[in-house]
Amino acid sequence: MAAFQCLTFLTDYGLEDAFVAVCHGVASQIAPDVRIIDISHLIPPGDIRRGAAVLAQAVPYLPVAVHVAVVDPGVGTERRAVAVEAAGSVFVGPDNGLLTWAIEAAGGARRAVELSNRALWRNTVTPTFHGRDIFMPVAAWLATGTPLDRAGDPIAVADLVRLPAPTFQVTGSVARAEVVTVDRFGNAQLSLPGDDAAPAGLVPGATVTLAWDRGKITIPFATTFGDVNPGELVCYRDSSEFVAIAVAGGNAAAHLGLRPGSAVTLAASQ
Amino acid sequence: MAAFQCLTFLTDYGLEDAFVAVCHGVASQIAPDVRIIDISHLIPPGDIRRGAAVLAQAVPYLPVAVHVAVVDPGVGTERRAVAVEAAGSVFVGPDNGLLTWAIEAAGGARRAVELSNRALWRNTVTPTFHGRDIFMPVAAWLATGTPLDRAGDPIAVADLVRLPAPTFQVTGSVARAEVVTVDRFGNAQLSLPGDDAAPAGLVPGATVTLAWDRGKITIPFATTFGDVNPGELVCYRDSSEFVAIAVAGGNAAAHLGLRPGSAVTLAASQ
Amino acid sequence: MAAFQCLTFLTDYGLEDAFVAVCHGVASQIAPDVRIIDISHLIPPGDIRRGAAVLAQAVPYLPVAVHVAVVDPGVGTERRAVAVEAAGSVFVGPDNGLLTWAIEAAGGARRAVELSNRALWRNTVTPTFHGRDIFMPVAAWLATGTPLDRAGDPIAVADLVRLPAPTFQVTGSVARAEVVTVDRFGNAQLSLPGDDAAPAGLVPGATVTLAWDRGKITIPFATTFGDVNPGELVCYRDSSEFVAIAVAGGNAAAHLGLRPGSAVTLAASQ
Repeated sequence: MAAFQCLTFLTDYGLEDAFVAVCHGVASQIAPDVRIIDISHLIPPGDIRRGAAVLAQAVPYLPVAVHVAVVDPGVGTERRAVAVEAAGSVFVGPDNGLLTWAIEAAGGARRAVELSNRALWRNTVTPTFHGRDIFMPVAAWLATGTPLDRAGDPIAVADLVRLPAPTFQVTGSVARAEVVTVDRFGNAQLSLPGDDAAPAGLVPGATVTLAWDRGKITIPFATTFGDVNPGELVCYRDSSEFVAIAVAGGNAAAHLGLRPGSAVTLAASQ
Repeated sequence: MAAFQCLTFLTDYGLEDAFVAVCHGVASQIAPDVRIIDISHLIPPGDIRRGAAVLAQAVPYLPVAVHVAVVDPGVGTERRAVAVEAAGSVFVGPDNGLLTWAIEAAGGARRAVELSNRALWRNTVTPTFHGRDIFMPVAAWLATGTPLDRAGDPIAVADLVRLPAPTFQVTGSVARAEVVTVDRFGNAQLSLPGDDAAPAGLVPGATVTLAWDRGKITIPFATTFGDVNPGELVCYRDSSEFVAIAVAGGNAAAHLGLRPGSAVTLAASQ
Repeated sequence: MAAFQCLTFLTDYGLEDAFVAVCHGVASQIAPDVRIIDISHLIPPGDIRRGAAVLAQAVPYLPVAVHVAVVDPGVGTERRAVAVEAAGSVFVGPDNGLLTWAIEAAGGARRAVELSNRALWRNTVTPTFHGRDIFMPVAAWLATGTPLDRAGDPIAVADLVRLPAPTFQVTGSVARAEVVTVDRFGNAQLSLPGDDAAPAGLVPGATVTLAWDRGKITIPFATTFGDVNPGELVCYRDSSEFVAIAVAGGNAAAHLGLRPGSAVTLAASQ
């Protein structure tokens, strides 16, 4: 495999400690010419589903790269450390489902190895900081052109741990879905792809009856926030092509009490 | 126009989602050798005035660059997307006033275009993420040397949307001003330039009577925080050469109840 | 001294203002080819001990570099600005103790200068932003190969301001220590090195009685978080080789009421 120009990096390490910088430092000593793009380090501690969602949202727009992701509540236990090739990129991280959705978005795993070659690790490996001691040094070596099969023993891609994907169901003009992520603006992205919502009449111009555990409300399906007045709710197809709920100039998730995992029903009328 | 070494980037996207990384990824695929300096991504959602203030504060110290700024509550509506040349740099963003103060700080707009050449956009443009789909790809092409007039049709610089500038008034030894920004330390920067304050006697060594909606207090005008005791209020000329109010080792804005837009009066005595 | 490939940067400037970007901009105009690694900019305002701890934690994993650190409540007063050579790197910052622990971790200061050569400063120096006006421009010049002794007059390394180091004491099977830092996960790192704790029997497999101002509790000394059940307390040797207290999947500092400076006693039994 040829060398990579770019490493990307997603963790739940936060920005108030030196954890992220330490990993940058480790990478820059192995692969000084490789550019690092930080995806986010504010994944809530240990929240594998949120990490998986943010990674999957980012990867389609990132260059071919070695993607390092670490949300790893099982660090130091028997969970495997893996590197997975997909669509010309390599995903490096714990085998706990974190990488799944991004790999699927990239077209599926082509091959995978368990990180077992200690020659690519830091000399000293601690039980609680594999981002610094294993994942980042291995990723940096891969970025410099070390072949994937040098990182460890091949494993079957079918054996990789998978996260259950968020589900949705469309019946006639009614869709059932769940909230996948809430972004900084309070926009709640649903598990419902825009392409699957359209046949149910959930398209711009429609009126939507939204039902969730706290109530029921009728709101417009529009193209963008500015199509409604400030403070008003709107249903729309978001920039990742999923259906989402927003308040123009406000915070829909806070307003409605929606959070990741919340079940919602959308019924369309014209 | 020659190529640029540097892109800068300011948004209200936050750091907990992948929005910023996605824009970095888009830029790096068009202009892999261009360095990106992130100015801030923690502008409060939709707060155009705060975004304009932070951008104007930063630009004088940044290299000649393509400056991309996106605080864009009107994304996807009829508001224009523009690129504006000023002082050898190019400012790219929504035409909602966000760019104004920085362009003025750079000596004023030389020429402007509306971003209408779709050949420089992403193939798919969504109605809610023009940072990724329009602003950043156009900026990256400009950084690689694409001439400004290839980005779209010329528009009159006089037609660019302007934000009303914060105002101040000096009469004798009394100045009226408003709070423009509050920084992380709680220091409240006023709309009063140090050069305009000096003739009123608002200079180090003076005593200042500060009046605002919650009270009146007499404090020293000093050179730096360390000139007063910890916990004491101080008026000073800040690092951007504007008059500001601080508490040494504390948070003046929280202590006094000041926020952007708060009106204050300063009266000097020696 | 040869040129450096890398600058690192730690401050209490926060990320909501343009302060960090302004310093990046200043550096990039003097040393455009030097890579900047941001360590953290979320040191609590003015908290020199926390800044010193984060810097010391990071430096062992960073490349040889010019390390710029600015947590500087005395900015603009008589406190000195210094550059200190240690282990081939140069540390630049205020002489208030901030740099001490990192320099000691790097093997001690080899030589030091007071930053007195104004030719390396910004033309205009304000009394409240020496990061932009003095520290970063000097550091960038040093990174490009300007010799250390051009930055100012030599001073005795013994005269550098030192922070009192966190202390610990081991007697038999009992260790007394203090909390040095609390990280994003709420893990409380103690001042007790793992190597000093081991002779007391504070090693994986032991049972530990932890006493602090709010109570006393018996917890396991384990290898990693995953060795105990979610929600349970655990004592362990952390990734910096210090003894620390965690809650698996939870926040130990919040749970126990520990904060930097808290005194704790650990008593081992097998």
